[in-house]
Amino acid sequence: MTEKYVVGLDFGTLSGRAAVVRVSDGEMVGTAVCEYPHAVMDTRLTAANGQELPPDFALQDPSDYLTALYETVPAAVADSGVEPADIIGVGLDFTSATVVAATAEGTPVCELPQFADNPHAWVKLWKHHGAVEQARRIVDVATERGEEWLSRYGGVLNSEMLLPKVAETLECAPEVYAATDVFCEAMDWLTWHLTGRLTFSAGSSGYKRILQDGRYPSRDFLRQVNPGLENVYDEKMNAPVLPLGHNVGGLLPEVASRLGLPAGIAVASGNIDAHVTGPAVQGVEDGVMTAIMGTSVCYLLSWPTPAPVAGIFGIVDGGIVDGSWGFEAGQTAAGDIFAWFVDTCVPARYQAEADELGIPVHELLTRKCEHQPVGAHGLVALDWHNGNRSTLMDAQLSGLMLGTSLTTTPEDQYRALLESCAFGARTIIEAFVSAGIDIEELVVAGGLTRNRLFMQILADVCRRPLSVGTAEQPGALGSAIFATVAAGEYPDVKAASAAMGAKKEGVYLPDEARADQYDLLYAEYSRLYDYFGRGGNEVMHRLKSLRAQARAASA
Amino acid sequence: MTEKYVVGLDFGTLSGRAAVVRVSDGEMVGTAVCEYPHAVMDTRLTAANGQELPPDFALQDPSDYLTALYETVPAAVADSGVEPADIIGVGLDFTSATVVAATAEGTPVCELPQFADNPHAWVKLWKHHGAVEQARRIVDVATERGEEWLSRYGGVLNSEMLLPKVAETLECAPEVYAATDVFCEAMDWLTWHLTGRLTFSAGSSGYKRILQDGRYPSRDFLRQVNPGLENVYDEKMNAPVLPLGHNVGGLLPEVASRLGLPAGIAVASGNIDAHVTGPAVQGVEDGVMTAIMGTSVCYLLSWPTPAPVAGIFGIVDGGIVDGSWGFEAGQTAAGDIFAWFVDTCVPARYQAEADELGIPVHELLTRKCEHQPVGAHGLVALDWHNGNRSTLMDAQLSGLMLGTSLTTTPEDQYRALLESCAFGARTIIEAFVSAGIDIEELVVAGGLTRNRLFMQILADVCRRPLSVGTAEQPGALGSAIFATVAAGEYPDVKAASAAMGAKKEGVYLPDEARADQYDLLYAEYSRLYDYFGRGGNEVMHRLKSLRAQARAASA
Repeated sequence: MTEKYVVGLDFGTLSGRAAVVRVSDGEMVGTAVCEYPHAVMDTRLTAANGQELPPDFALQDPSDYLTALYETVPAAVADSGVEPADIIGVGLDFTSATVVAATAEGTPVCELPQFADNPHAWVKLWKHHGAVEQARRIVDVATERGEEWLSRYGGVLNSEMLLPKVAETLECAPEVYAATDVFCEAMDWLTWHLTGRLTFSAGSSGYKRILQDGRYPSRDFLRQVNPGLENVYDEKMNAPVLPLGHNVGGLLPEVASRLGLPAGIAVASGNIDAHVTGPAVQGVEDGVMTAIMGTSVCYLLSWPTPAPVAGIFGIVDGGIVDGSWGFEAGQTAAGDIFAWFVDTCVPARYQAEADELGIPVHELLTRKCEHQPVGAHGLVALDWHNGNRSTLMDAQLSGLMLGTSLTTTPEDQYRALLESCAFGARTIIEAFVSAGIDIEELVVAGGLTRNRLFMQILADVCRRPLSVGTAEQPGALGSAIFATVAAGEYPDVKAASAAMGAKKEGVYLPDEARADQYDLLYAEYSRLYDYFGRGGNEVMHRLKSLRAQARAASA
Repeated sequence: MTEKYVVGLDFGTLSGRAAVVRVSDGEMVGTAVCEYPHAVMDTRLTAANGQELPPDFALQDPSDYLTALYETVPAAVADSGVEPADIIGVGLDFTSATVVAATAEGTPVCELPQFADNPHAWVKLWKHHGAVEQARRIVDVATERGEEWLSRYGGVLNSEMLLPKVAETLECAPEVYAATDVFCEAMDWLTWHLTGRLTFSAGSSGYKRILQDGRYPSRDFLRQVNPGLENVYDEKMNAPVLPLGHNVGGLLPEVASRLGLPAGIAVASGNIDAHVTGPAVQGVEDGVMTAIMGTSVCYLLSWPTPAPVAGIFGIVDGGIVDGSWGFEAGQTAAGDIFAWFVDTCVPARYQAEADELGIPVHELLTRKCEHQPVGAHGLVALDWHNGNRSTLMDAQLSGLMLGTSLTTTPEDQYRALLESCAFGARTIIEAFVSAGIDIEELVVAGGLTRNRLFMQILADVCRRPLSVGTAEQPGALGSAIFATVAAGEYPDVKAASAAMGAKKEGVYLPDEARADQYDLLYAEYSRLYDYFGRGGNEVMHRLKSLRAQARAASA
């Protein structure tokens, strides 16, 4: 029997990637990558008149996505040597919420000549932060009205979500708003382009478009936020919501021919980039937690019910895998903290020693402290250098290092920082466990899986064996898995993940004696966590505000 | 009229120094220094059989002091070109409590052949820490009995004081104890050597020998500590207590001839090394605080009454200047913290930049942050890297850095550490002010006066102009000042200090706007100070104990 293949597309912040993946076992047989010509436009509108942009802006050119699409797919197919006829589906993931404003025909309004110079007509990338004021107002109104859906997001809405960005367009560029027929995620705009059919992915609809229990926020609520928004969901964000892994429609013939793929093959509903990692590392069964650990950490977990987990926000029906409730949690920094420390806090003689040994400073620090008994450094740290998402949802928190003495070494502090991130992970896991969700397995993916000391500390602190995801391109592989389901090759994502995903179990095992000692340090971490994070001492908030004032006054 | 001169001697931890000083104006006309041949014996008893010493030991050879005495005085006189006949007195300061065990004739018992190999027969240097257990027992018994004198020391006795060290000798080397007729400070042993008369200096008697309100601890108390100690003050620590600046007696002819000085000239009562700095920098008037700021900080203040100052311990009648009550306070680390940071926490690119500019890293960091608006770094630190003496008297506390973010720079942290030490100083000053002792002037001496940024921060944080001591050898100059008073050239130390001491007033002036901003940061410091220092969260104690256990278990 001939092997079948799918194309997995992974649209990141700076580039798009395509992979040709074997349906039977997930083997990646061909890949290609393409950087977006205009990258992120955060200082100037380089795709148009080059005008300067406000400081919080982060825009993209939607035609860059098509450039990447049409460059990478043929290249990946060529790279694979696979017969195009054996390719049966396409899946994609995308950064989110990355918002396209389009006409009813799908033309981005930034391509209309009269709006080319208007920043609000361009794609607002996930990290566009121009809608902070709107997000705050939306939360205030929702809080005042006691909107039930707000609790699913922890009582806080990120300005990166769709509604704040759309409100910003209404208020700052009403003419663009008026000319826009559809505000949608870039992932949905792309599947629309591929199939001719506009649908909204269930995952991002819950996480980013405030679809909860089958409903969007009410007209009354929207009117109170801004009368002009009253009908925004009916008029400009109105499309069928498609479960993850479902088929949006067949690949349009004209698109198929440009891509070199068979016309009519399945196109899976789009997905949030981080969320496709779960299937790629076989972390999708209910009660299995996938931790994507890199500069920051994203936790994904599916569970049969929307159990209320204290401090865990982002609870969406079918949000990660169709048929289960998806829980998303996060740490705002982890690898970023270690990198900051290595870059900023390690003396010249360590750099020289690492250079002499021909190893990175990370490795030198690891060698110097990996055999240290637990607690021997006398330190405890808080991993809030970039705020805290789960379980405190507070961006104004900051880092802490406690216990330093005149003999404290760089490796002592480095280890304390690794431990603090592991304690942060344990805090999140314990929140789930307290709500009756037993985390049976922890599957770790991402760049930090290469930090063996951090991995071992994580296993010890959490008293859990770690499975490590082994997919080299988990984004593209994950998207490919959704494509196989949409194409009907597997009954569901769990089955496809089991066959195609890749992980190694029990790579790091907890050590009982170390775990016992870590319990003592974790108790200290928790006490500081509560004191500084839950109102015992608002010093971090006050310092942030003092800092902002001091900088503003001197600017 | 012929100018008159005195010799000021300054016995430090590693060397002795002599200076010939003009009586009329304190001009230092000749100096000489001599390192002790055996330095500090803290690993081996190198002056005897070379045996290994326990880890907490720090011993010295008393003959080294005589070597330094007889080398430096003639050399300093020769260096000065002064006629020996114009030299009218000798004064000295010494590390303290540095304890000599001697026979009734003044022979150190370590010079008796039968005890040469016994570590307890040698001089126990101030930083000998073999008597920790004895100090703890003395405090426990005093606390249980409610001994009133204990409060003068903050309810805590340092193991560096005389009684713990003597008790250690009794318990660990009873034969040495039995053979000892006199346990005295090295300063008193030296004035004994110079004059043939054993007296105890009033300063160290109060600060280090527990003489309070004219009485030593009672026999009942001593018996309870150890029955063998019952009569220790009567039998082995019994000598007239001589006020500071008084004449112990005339210089013995045989000593005078070896020194090349006139026989019979005045020898002033010895003094604690740090304490002679006050007169040397004109910081002795009541209400003037002298801060000797180096690796750690020593605060000296005289006041007419023993006012109870919360958290300030070391209150001694005539302890610093005869006729006033002396208050001593301290910060256990300051320059040590900055040095630790520069050595341990500053990255290679900063070192390279400093090298390129040909400046020390301290100076580079200063340039990078000295114009930063107050609070712009978003940080607050606690300066407890070596514990806290005043006002908490707690060696188990440790350092803290709060507010770090992914953009925190080395200069941010450096500045926060400088600020934390200034906040620690303000805490001490405020303790005095709260007790009705208005600090009218702050005179700063020591190595940290060269750190201009720290000085300015100190002035701003404390809202006080800083006078800076300008004596190059404040130890030798201070000792010389006491010699002039003992010789009857000045009516008292205050008058001598006014004529001979050296300071510059108003070198650093507080800036109102910065001081207002610092009030906000100081409020945060104080809140953390109370929380971590006064029982709100004993995490620092627990981490220290966990660290000790972890290290012991792995040893």
